[in-house]
Amino acid sequence: MATPSSAVVRAFAPASASNIACGFDIFGFAAEGWGDTVEARRREEPGVVLTAIEGDDGVLPREAAKNTAGIAVMQFLAEVGAPETGIALRLTKGMPLRSGLGSSAASAVAALTAVNALLGAPLAKERLLAAAVAAEAAACGSAHADNAAPSLYGGFVLVRGGARPEVTPLPVPAELTCAFLHPPLEVDTGAARKLLGDHIPLHAAVTQWGNTAALVAALFREDWALLQSALVDVVAEPVRSRLVPGFAQIQAAARAEGALGCSLSGSGPTLFALCRGLPQAERAAATMAMALTTATGLTGETQVTRVGAAGARVLP
Amino acid sequence: MATPSSAVVRAFAPASASNIACGFDIFGFAAEGWGDTVEARRREEPGVVLTAIEGDDGVLPREAAKNTAGIAVMQFLAEVGAPETGIALRLTKGMPLRSGLGSSAASAVAALTAVNALLGAPLAKERLLAAAVAAEAAACGSAHADNAAPSLYGGFVLVRGGARPEVTPLPVPAELTCAFLHPPLEVDTGAARKLLGDHIPLHAAVTQWGNTAALVAALFREDWALLQSALVDVVAEPVRSRLVPGFAQIQAAARAEGALGCSLSGSGPTLFALCRGLPQAERAAATMAMALTTATGLTGETQVTRVGAAGARVLP
Repeated sequence: MATPSSAVVRAFAPASASNIACGFDIFGFAAEGWGDTVEARRREEPGVVLTAIEGDDGVLPREAAKNTAGIAVMQFLAEVGAPETGIALRLTKGMPLRSGLGSSAASAVAALTAVNALLGAPLAKERLLAAAVAAEAAACGSAHADNAAPSLYGGFVLVRGGARPEVTPLPVPAELTCAFLHPPLEVDTGAARKLLGDHIPLHAAVTQWGNTAALVAALFREDWALLQSALVDVVAEPVRSRLVPGFAQIQAAARAEGALGCSLSGSGPTLFALCRGLPQAERAAATMAMALTTATGLTGETQVTRVGAAGARVLP
Repeated sequence: MATPSSAVVRAFAPASASNIACGFDIFGFAAEGWGDTVEARRREEPGVVLTAIEGDDGVLPREAAKNTAGIAVMQFLAEVGAPETGIALRLTKGMPLRSGLGSSAASAVAALTAVNALLGAPLAKERLLAAAVAAEAAACGSAHADNAAPSLYGGFVLVRGGARPEVTPLPVPAELTCAFLHPPLEVDTGAARKLLGDHIPLHAAVTQWGNTAALVAALFREDWALLQSALVDVVAEPVRSRLVPGFAQIQAAARAEGALGCSLSGSGPTLFALCRGLPQAERAAATMAMALTTATGLTGETQVTRVGAAGARVLP
């Protein structure tokens, strides 16, 4: 067992967008601006406890074994062969829950980053990622790293594989920015996944894998026209967007502002619009919010971020 | 109508591999070593004629309106608004027919390249490609540019869209090579396509589009391990490889030689094995040929090529 390097460690992990139009279950990027903070300290008694959660309006389970932050740390302690270590966690949510922004992944990744530092960094990033994915699988029922990976690594990542994910960080053009609009709605991720069915048309699949290939080439070349043509989802968006009232109007508003692409973040209800430069993202966020209100009467929360944001980190 | 720039022009267009494991209908590369040559000249009488075909053992239709070379030139003349121009073509096949190496595309592309030069180059590459795709659609019944595009552009290309394809040339590591093995068999492309069915499992599609994205990143980064992990086809190969006796043994032989990946070129029966360096490709070709003979008693034809080969060109 590694020696504790300090008595208390705080770590931050950003929210993340996943899928990114064509890249269902394979692409994600860190969404700086939103994110979770976890404070971890040793305690005398064995086991992991959550002493406090803030910023969740009392919604999340307080029991460590039912919260992704707690589960992730238990997974971590099992990994390092010290399951009886006593750890106390405080979680501060800085992002909307069940929004398609990887809230549970951000909690798990922040907790793992804090505890790894607290215990002298015994695990490398890929093993932290595996622990985060296992925690998400336990809490949410499906193992996907497309939120945990960008939250941990930062930037824009390609994720392949389920329980043992392989992460390929992709280059991010410095000017690439994102406008988010989070409508005050909830989408059940499981229900959104079922909507897709087990099979998809071959011609749609071909379009999709042509677009994922083109998206990667566009990021390497900083080819904005190619990026725009690649940010098209013919598989998930057509069925899932029905769960988000006003989707078509919001997407049209983002496009009218010149956004490169606009779709659901994860299974929604949050929408992202990739843009070139912060001013365009600011304008897109404003017009998307207006479109939501016009279409539904609802007021959404917006966020503007660079896409090349850093991943999880220990706070000073 | 452009003025004839010379009385006779000869052009060469290489064979091509398409699909490339994960990239069904979207990836292709030029396979220098094999290819077609077309000689084009003006003639007094209006209309397109095929005066000779060599190297096809008398198999291909001699009527210009039924041969992709002739159809492509008719398409070209319609495009430039001079359908009555008199053109005589001589086609020399330098590659196996119905082999999964884009034989009809190579004929069309060589003919278009020759006639375009003969008539003063009135059409740009993307319009030549559209004419080649239209010719293939007329001759073979389906519009796909994944052979015509690499034959015309050379190198490794991403192709999206059907009748109006968008071509994205990808970078090719200088060391990337290919071993081909052409067994003396024929696979009906239409039947091979029907084998796939209209729908595929979503989880297979996700694996596939993760791999197409990874393959592009691997080409940009010259990341050989990533390339190897991306060259996996969970959609077409499992069903189509059954049409090629000895496939499993040949693939295993290529892998044992350290090939990055080995699968069917197009719908087969030709297999390709991507390799690092010419010596490895030479060894892979030999061992693949031996595996074919051991498994089936058949003797195949092999070819070793760099992947970054040039595309169609006018011969001096």
